[in-house]
Amino acid sequence: MSIEIREARAGDGAALHAMVRSLAESHGELAQFRASPADYEVALFGEHPLVGALLALADGVPAGCAIWHRSFSTFRGRETMYLEDLSVLEAYRRQGIARMLLKAVARLAVARGMASISWHLMAWNDGARALYEEAGADIEEGVCICRLHGAALERWCERDSLSGL
Amino acid sequence: MSIEIREARAGDGAALHAMVRSLAESHGELAQFRASPADYEVALFGEHPLVGALLALADGVPAGCAIWHRSFSTFRGRETMYLEDLSVLEAYRRQGIARMLLKAVARLAVARGMASISWHLMAWNDGARALYEEAGADIEEGVCICRLHGAALERWCERDSLSGL
Repeated sequence: MSIEIREARAGDGAALHAMVRSLAESHGELAQFRASPADYEVALFGEHPLVGALLALADGVPAGCAIWHRSFSTFRGRETMYLEDLSVLEAYRRQGIARMLLKAVARLAVARGMASISWHLMAWNDGARALYEEAGADIEEGVCICRLHGAALERWCERDSLSGL
Repeated sequence: MSIEIREARAGDGAALHAMVRSLAESHGELAQFRASPADYEVALFGEHPLVGALLALADGVPAGCAIWHRSFSTFRGRETMYLEDLSVLEAYRRQGIARMLLKAVARLAVARGMASISWHLMAWNDGARALYEEAGADIEEGVCICRLHGAALERWCERDSLSGL
């Protein structure tokens, strides 16, 4: 099997969308998945894109992807890369494709002058952790991700408008 | 004491820089703090800025800030807001300024059409957690932050260049 890693380009939105949707499904999170292929085309290939991606092709067929977005470190005062998704379709796992993708992400970050890449790891995910340790990443434990959205966001915006806080 | 919250504007880079530097110092992380005031001016007030900030002024003097950057959710297919720093200078704490800032951040996100705000919480930080719970944020535990940078990033880019990986 021949593996090729390349940057995603206009028209790849549908393939990326299918892979992230498959990831959402395998995590039991399909209810939270609301993106369309067109959303990906706009975010990745519109003007001044915030988002970029790499595709892994196995004998020419999409087998995995890495999706990242621009980020910023207030300590460094520099733009950095945030790796949002690194995924390989079930049928193509255990062949080193995630490792190839992570290496390509690193090379892309350096080529773009970004001195740091960050991403999340679920503490229980030993398989992914082994790869990230091999890559030499610092792993900071004991973090929570907070998300404010939907009805809770609306309520928080509205509360206390007369109390002066 | 009169508290005003407003969006940061060109020229505020020095005040924001001083506050984040103070935060780095209080966390014992001054060695990692390398940003300059000019870095902030460029990132926040250049063309197509990736980063934005709110300033809290106490009787006109900078007392706290919230610094956010644009982000993207592959599940939603939409731009979101990532809150990088929410900090109040020591002398101004316990007066509800962080709460006012978090509320202003939420209103700004909604005004910009961002349906979600995310940020990190250290699991041990009970004081911050209470505010985030009050705001109605979902708090996901058991996360690690991975960072690949510096010499480790260089090494990872270079390794295996001949092995096909």
